Amino acid sequence: MSIPTPIEWQEGRLKILDQTLLPHQTRWIELETIEDVFEAIIQLKVRGAPAIGITAAYGLAIAAKKYEGVDIETFHLRIHEDYLYLAGSRPTAVNLFWALDRMMKVIETLYSTEETIISLEQEAKKIHQEDEEICRQIGENALSLLNGRKKVLTICNAGTIATGKYGTALAPFHLGKEKGVDFQVYACETRPVLQGARLTAWELQQSNVDVTVITDNMAAHTIATKGIEAIIVGADRIASNGDTANKIGTWQLAILANYFQIPFYVAAPLSTFDFSIASGADIPIEERLAEEVTHIGPNQITPEGTKVFNPAFDVTTANLITAIITEKGIFEADRNKLAQLNKAEEGVRA
Amino acid sequence: MSIPTPIEWQEGRLKILDQTLLPHQTRWIELETIEDVFEAIIQLKVRGAPAIGITAAYGLAIAAKKYEGVDIETFHLRIHEDYLYLAGSRPTAVNLFWALDRMMKVIETLYSTEETIISLEQEAKKIHQEDEEICRQIGENALSLLNGRKKVLTICNAGTIATGKYGTALAPFHLGKEKGVDFQVYACETRPVLQGARLTAWELQQSNVDVTVITDNMAAHTIATKGIEAIIVGADRIASNGDTANKIGTWQLAILANYFQIPFYVAAPLSTFDFSIASGADIPIEERLAEEVTHIGPNQITPEGTKVFNPAFDVTTANLITAIITEKGIFEADRNKLAQLNKAEEGVRA
Repeated sequence: MSIPTPIEWQEGRLKILDQTLLPHQTRWIELETIEDVFEAIIQLKVRGAPAIGITAAYGLAIAAKKYEGVDIETFHLRIHEDYLYLAGSRPTAVNLFWALDRMMKVIETLYSTEETIISLEQEAKKIHQEDEEICRQIGENALSLLNGRKKVLTICNAGTIATGKYGTALAPFHLGKEKGVDFQVYACETRPVLQGARLTAWELQQSNVDVTVITDNMAAHTIATKGIEAIIVGADRIASNGDTANKIGTWQLAILANYFQIPFYVAAPLSTFDFSIASGADIPIEERLAEEVTHIGPNQITPEGTKVFNPAFDVTTANLITAIITEKGIFEADRNKLAQLNKAEEGVRA
Repeated sequence: MSIPTPIEWQEGRLKILDQTLLPHQTRWIELETIEDVFEAIIQLKVRGAPAIGITAAYGLAIAAKKYEGVDIETFHLRIHEDYLYLAGSRPTAVNLFWALDRMMKVIETLYSTEETIISLEQEAKKIHQEDEEICRQIGENALSLLNGRKKVLTICNAGTIATGKYGTALAPFHLGKEKGVDFQVYACETRPVLQGARLTAWELQQSNVDVTVITDNMAAHTIATKGIEAIIVGADRIASNGDTANKIGTWQLAILANYFQIPFYVAAPLSTFDFSIASGADIPIEERLAEEVTHIGPNQITPEGTKVFNPAFDVTTANLITAIITEKGIFEADRNKLAQLNKAEEGVRA
């Protein structure tokens, strides 16, 4: 039993855990070409914003190797084409662009093809290692905030297999295990795509963390009868005022936490904050295909022609969030502290 | 399009809608013998407490016909055996015993086999008609209480196919359609057994009622973004103080209704009240098989060996219930009014 990771880079070879086969098969596949990387991303073999970014970065490093021996101008031309190709794999994934743009910045400063190829590999490895370190820090901060609370509820999979290592919301459980802190985690199955039942259950079992799956409508009864002491979730996007978009179902967990007077924590890297938007009202909510609700696997569960509503995310208002846990510390989700963070970030960007 | 009913009695022949095939097949089957009735109940071809009671009553009427021509003492002996046989089909179904006991009361007062056979058929039909009438009254009372609120959320299937006709929580929607009142109903799919997605969607479509299925974790987002104006649910058992046991997931809907300041209604016949218990704390919560959570249809969704928690019901505390809608009127779920009802019931029993 050890903490699973979704991406391995060994002596210039990229291997990823094929997440489409989880939880029933644990199969690693090698991505040998940029086309392999593209396919792995669009087929969701790798998922989770940070893990997609890391994989794409390695993809560009792999592409660069094809051009050994070509002049630097031709190299720039070709690698730019590869950059655009990879950027098209999941056009809505912010981390994908962030990672690819960071890789392209390396190229700008170098004038030898050979040196650039080496630097691209180093940069991809750095992106990978930094993500692991960010998640470890989030886990440390979450552990200190949980402060002995052992029975914790979560939703979706903000886990190690969505990141370099450790995950965000699940980081304290993996890290706790390394330190001998035993949590009792309750995982909402997370309809319609069942990331909780499939992925969170799997990865916590791999780390030997005690995990129990419940259906999403069992949350209130479980909080009350199992003595849940805190709820912790990930985030897709956090607005300037602390409003947090995350997997559908998150908002109602926050309302339950408020009702039962237990803390509700969001765990996310600073890169999740979007200070260009004032509040959650400005976050568009993607609606996904009806088939995700009407079918489970190949089986249709609803009658033919049933209307469904399938929002992928919801927005938890900041008033319901006890704290946001980042790699740089813990922020209470109130406007003043977030405004300070906003200013600090602006300072970094300036 | 018309309101479906789960049980038909036509010229001495019993037909039921095979609910195990819903929503993909609408098949009626004839139950010709008491053994057919027993099998239909244990195989859940008929489900819902009132519908089971009605079917069992007809089952006893069918059994009685076998004894045409036998002396009344032998008849009493045989029909008592049949009574015990049917009572064993679902030992926890309160309505089953209630209906069978009511049938046996008819026998006590009659001394001719032929007359008793006729009276048993009449009594079964009466139980059937009375249930329909109770549900119609609940529907009328719910319609007057909803008072123009059209966007309503529900869970599970407290519907026409669980009763003689109309259902309880779904009665106002079917009845509304008859009167030209068009609701927009949102049905929680109701994991793990998916009664909302399979049965509520099906039966409201049959009545041409506008219904949209959501997964159970979409409730808060749907209430807020679709402008849900009320939540209405059924009940399995109501304690003296108004605490209500119903399908798992009901409690958290009540907490959401409270948060969003919309009314939360329980619709149930008076027979659902259990004045022998003081509060919901005295209601035992049945836990069901892990497979209901780990599998959907034949497909296993969780990793091998995953722990699950599978409570079938939860208890909504009376403070979260705006009103309880019965066939005799609307009760606000506060102790004083329920105490009056309790006294009135005691008067009826005395």
